[in-house]
Amino acid sequence: MLETNIDDMSQEIYSYILPKLFDMGVLDAFLTNIIMKKGRPAIKLSILLPSNLLERVESFIFHETTTLGVRKYRVEREILERHFTTLKTDIGEVSVKEGYYRGKCVNFKAEYDQCQRLAERNNISLKEVYNRIHYFKELNEE
Amino acid sequence: MLETNIDDMSQEIYSYILPKLFDMGVLDAFLTNIIMKKGRPAIKLSILLPSNLLERVESFIFHETTTLGVRKYRVEREILERHFTTLKTDIGEVSVKEGYYRGKCVNFKAEYDQCQRLAERNNISLKEVYNRIHYFKELNEE
Amino acid sequence: MLETNIDDMSQEIYSYILPKLFDMGVLDAFLTNIIMKKGRPAIKLSILLPSNLLERVESFIFHETTTLGVRKYRVEREILERHFTTLKTDIGEVSVKEGYYRGKCVNFKAEYDQCQRLAERNNISLKEVYNRIHYFKELNEE
Amino acid sequence: MLETNIDDMSQEIYSYILPKLFDMGVLDAFLTNIIMKKGRPAIKLSILLPSNLLERVESFIFHETTTLGVRKYRVEREILERHFTTLKTDIGEVSVKEGYYRGKCVNFKAEYDQCQRLAERNNISLKEVYNRIHYFKELNEE
Amino acid sequence: MLETNIDDMSQEIYSYILPKLFDMGVLDAFLTNIIMKKGRPAIKLSILLPSNLLERVESFIFHETTTLGVRKYRVEREILERHFTTLKTDIGEVSVKEGYYRGKCVNFKAEYDQCQRLAERNNISLKEVYNRIHYFKELNEE
Amino acid sequence: MLETNIDDMSQEIYSYILPKLFDMGVLDAFLTNIIMKKGRPAIKLSILLPSNLLERVESFIFHETTTLGVRKYRVEREILERHFTTLKTDIGEVSVKEGYYRGKCVNFKAEYDQCQRLAERNNISLKEVYNRIHYFKELNEE
Repeated sequence: MLETNIDDMSQEIYSYILPKLFDMGVLDAFLTNIIMKKGRPAIKLSILLPSNLLERVESFIFHETTTLGVRKYRVEREILERHFTTLKTDIGEVSVKEGYYRGKCVNFKAEYDQCQRLAERNNISLKEVYNRIHYFKELNEE
Repeated sequence: MLETNIDDMSQEIYSYILPKLFDMGVLDAFLTNIIMKKGRPAIKLSILLPSNLLERVESFIFHETTTLGVRKYRVEREILERHFTTLKTDIGEVSVKEGYYRGKCVNFKAEYDQCQRLAERNNISLKEVYNRIHYFKELNEE
Repeated sequence: MLETNIDDMSQEIYSYILPKLFDMGVLDAFLTNIIMKKGRPAIKLSILLPSNLLERVESFIFHETTTLGVRKYRVEREILERHFTTLKTDIGEVSVKEGYYRGKCVNFKAEYDQCQRLAERNNISLKEVYNRIHYFKELNEE
Repeated sequence: MLETNIDDMSQEIYSYILPKLFDMGVLDAFLTNIIMKKGRPAIKLSILLPSNLLERVESFIFHETTTLGVRKYRVEREILERHFTTLKTDIGEVSVKEGYYRGKCVNFKAEYDQCQRLAERNNISLKEVYNRIHYFKELNEE
Repeated sequence: MLETNIDDMSQEIYSYILPKLFDMGVLDAFLTNIIMKKGRPAIKLSILLPSNLLERVESFIFHETTTLGVRKYRVEREILERHFTTLKTDIGEVSVKEGYYRGKCVNFKAEYDQCQRLAERNNISLKEVYNRIHYFKELNEE
Repeated sequence: MLETNIDDMSQEIYSYILPKLFDMGVLDAFLTNIIMKKGRPAIKLSILLPSNLLERVESFIFHETTTLGVRKYRVEREILERHFTTLKTDIGEVSVKEGYYRGKCVNFKAEYDQCQRLAERNNISLKEVYNRIHYFKELNEE
């Protein structure tokens, strides 16, 4: 986990930095609002990355942001075994990522971009798309 | 310390998860607002727990939330020695937790639920209850 | 200004809703983290819109989100007179929006997407792109 | 809408104030983190209330919090027509609040406390309870 | 109430702007973290001011920040009647602001800068200073 | 890195604690808004410090705040090599801190207090001061 606090940069730049970081292969990257000395609002940038990316990401951060230093510490990860399947519904097909904990499917997540497209193609709300997907997911498991 | 970022779950569920975690014996559990990729507002769930609870808490998190992975790292704790006493005031008795640093009482905390009850029973504001408690605490120390 | 608080919806949906709102012609739309009853983290969705869009936006909000009610109040706007020009720099041209207050240019803003493209085409950081733009902006004014 | 900023009060008190406000009949009450002068983190307390409650709520706020002033402005509300029904599922019955926009049900919300009890009684996760409810809701509409 | 959203400015500048605004006579000024389009973290600057300051403050905002527009709406204020007294304690004197609601003192606030000085002069924690002040305040009222 | 969560303290105290911590020599100190059990808004205080300061800072935290415990973990830091120079501009001189990554200057930061003074002395906005500084910085590098 690599972290840095930034208080002297246009916040516009984050919508440039985050996608670039994911393109480089980081496992996760996110922002937290913090308050720094003199009461300045600031952003903590947190990046979860495999150690082999460390040098490349540090160089990127120093070039793209205004930070003068980063800090890092080791974290261990525990991730669910993931299976990818396709779910058929009455409004179309969608890719689904299932998370297994000790052989049991405990989570599933429909691919967001496809859900968005289903909403637009069927002219229904994204909320309804999720409802249909959950319905057909449960139906399959009966 | 066990942490996970969640962006695809009704936030209503947190008022269910947090009490359950404390019931399981975790030392602390709290939420932080973060911003994830594609600018999605999300929640970081942080849980401070003894290592013997790790497996049980991980299983709980994977079953109750939509997360597909958690991360964890070791932290060391430094806690004040705590004494529990009863404080007598003109509005009633209240349990007090005192924190000692090197033999000196540096902090004290009246039991919240009892303060709330004192407010209701005496028909005064909770603020006044705290004022009375602080007053009698200082009075005792004179 | 139209506002609604939402605590029972996957936060993923906001990255769908916000662009759609701007497509519909709202003047601004943004999210604020709030804490609702029972300590639930929630999101306040704020939308600044001309009154002729009100009905269409309300219908959209009720269909796309899980809210059961919205609130609204009138706000007056004071906006700078805006001029659009093109700025020539040694790394390429960029569209610039200038804000005038009583005939004096007090603000300017280079078009973000073009800055991003300049960074990629010149293989420099976005930060350097902004530095070059500011430099040529000041140079022109000498 | 009544609002006040508070920076000199133990945050513990909010878990006392919010339920009391709802007991008094306010329509909504929520907290927002803000940053005040000298960089102090603070809380903005927002209360949506009918005008006939104004005096009682103001008195409560001045007695229970440390604020020296409140501000208020009128907002108009647009709420969905609400129907209450009971939904039968294979894990038990649950009360459901449906929101209608121009005669069409666009939202529904199962009663949270009952969902929590269903999770405990059936020894399944709250997430699964919601999945079952959505499933039977959609099934009924087929 | 005057508000503006800013996402393209170094956050460092806020520790410059806020004190200047109070020097100009605004009633309150504070910052809220928000999320704008494209998921950009941003700051909402809120200023509560009497209408005769409006033009001067707007000019200041347009000159000092990067905003291209502000919005404003009327709010009504309800403030406690305030009395200023001096409180004598065993660690020194301190100015106290008391808030009266219908003739009853419901709030009081010791002047922060003086408390800080008392802490330093007596070589005790600021927390203890507040405890002593509350103690003598209650003692006087007995 | 030393961290503690605080939910029962007037937030006013943070503007006292942070400067004191920097006076003691900590490397960084900042605040994050969190939500604790029973939905209480709270503050996480984070302090980055060299290990030789640990005991002194812990003692300070236990005396000045209401916390009953802190947690800590090791982080590694990667900081840019820093050079301090003076930049001459048409509005005055300013100290500049430059950050070097592998021999290349990737960041620079004008000393904030001096910028503020330049703004006041030249009667221009702080924004314009930064623009002039960036202009002369780039000019020098041509």
